[in-house]
Amino acid sequence: MNTLIIISHPEMDESSSQQFLVQSLSDPSLENVTIHPLEKTYPDGIIDVKKEQQLLREHDRIIFQFPFYWYSSPPLLKKWQDEVLTEHFAFGYRGNKLKNKELGLVLSIGVAEKDYQAGGQEGFSISELTKPFQAMAKKTGMTYVKPLSIFQFPYKSERDKMTLLIAYQQYVTLSKPDALKSREEWLVNRLEDISYETLTGENAVFIIDQVVELIEDNRMELDELRMHINNFHD
Amino acid sequence: MNTLIIISHPEMDESSSQQFLVQSLSDPSLENVTIHPLEKTYPDGIIDVKKEQQLLREHDRIIFQFPFYWYSSPPLLKKWQDEVLTEHFAFGYRGNKLKNKELGLVLSIGVAEKDYQAGGQEGFSISELTKPFQAMAKKTGMTYVKPLSIFQFPYKSERDKMTLLIAYQQYVTLSKPDALKSREEWLVNRLEDISYETLTGENAVFIIDQVVELIEDNRMELDELRMHINNFHD
Repeated sequence: MNTLIIISHPEMDESSSQQFLVQSLSDPSLENVTIHPLEKTYPDGIIDVKKEQQLLREHDRIIFQFPFYWYSSPPLLKKWQDEVLTEHFAFGYRGNKLKNKELGLVLSIGVAEKDYQAGGQEGFSISELTKPFQAMAKKTGMTYVKPLSIFQFPYKSERDKMTLLIAYQQYVTLSKPDALKSREEWLVNRLEDISYETLTGENAVFIIDQVVELIEDNRMELDELRMHINNFHD
Repeated sequence: MNTLIIISHPEMDESSSQQFLVQSLSDPSLENVTIHPLEKTYPDGIIDVKKEQQLLREHDRIIFQFPFYWYSSPPLLKKWQDEVLTEHFAFGYRGNKLKNKELGLVLSIGVAEKDYQAGGQEGFSISELTKPFQAMAKKTGMTYVKPLSIFQFPYKSERDKMTLLIAYQQYVTLSKPDALKSREEWLVNRLEDISYETLTGENAVFIIDQVVELIEDNRMELDELRMHINNFHD
């Protein structure tokens, strides 16, 4: 699977979360991932529509990665949508070039997760506020992937940042990031890539923790299946 | 009531609906309405934040008027939101400058109204797709006014365009555009402004039609009230 990460941020170099995410993709094992920062590619805001459409053709998963200012994308990503997703390319007669590709969102959000609900400070959920992107996926025949929402990155502990790094790498590379089986395989592959000498210290402990957690998840799922089977026999 | 209409359209001069709407506001009786086309004011895209914040202070109703491309605003309006609606002005500590003002949307939409629902071609309602603006109103303490959605303007008949013109003029000038009483008063005022000599021909007939329609609405409302009162006596 080829992934295109379209990053839009008016001040990307000043964003600690964007820097963290981009650096986490420098891992050489993450091939087939194209990072495409819009503001750096088009500092004058003039978008090369043909080039963008070619990039879209070459990738299976398209990710919009941006700060969720005023509950939407930065201006340049909206300009990109308006200019690149043309009729006969993205929708309308013969406009099937995005069909069956995946659309994912990686949102960096300054307010706490609990505030995104009715009665919370923001009053609306992320699922409600991202309807325009869900509608875009529908119109273009894309499969909308559950977003990766990153709440209050600067306040995260080092451990939470490492967990985020794993979740992000999985989000951009796995075909079904949510499935237990996918995550399990991914982690096993990553473990196999590590040479034994490096398996000391904090990082090794962390990876082992992750494996343990996955095995526990696995156990719970198996237990649940067993319970269903038992109920059938009753 | 002072109304600020912030228009955003990447090609405003080519838009028949925007031209129609703006021309309909040239009526001298529509005082207290400020038309503010963003792309014409800032052709280089560099927004004068202080000036914009001053404009906001001077008006009670703020209207965002734009084509609903990809279920959201054009890029320059998003840039305006991101740069003008700053913390301590629009939200956060002492950020109460928009509090109790009204936020309205005038949306021009290329697809038919019936397609904006579950099962329709677009799959989502306008109420769902405009959640980001509802959330903005909530965050800034503004009152969100029911949008004026203009579907498929170029296909409208002359009569439908006249009806739209009335609805639009009421939307930008009336404090409660929906209330029967407001619309009644507005129309009576407009009728009083017309000199008798002009009361011939098609336009007069149209206005009289509108009056009749309002009176009929009024009658229905009164009938309903009467029914309620009768039920009480039974």
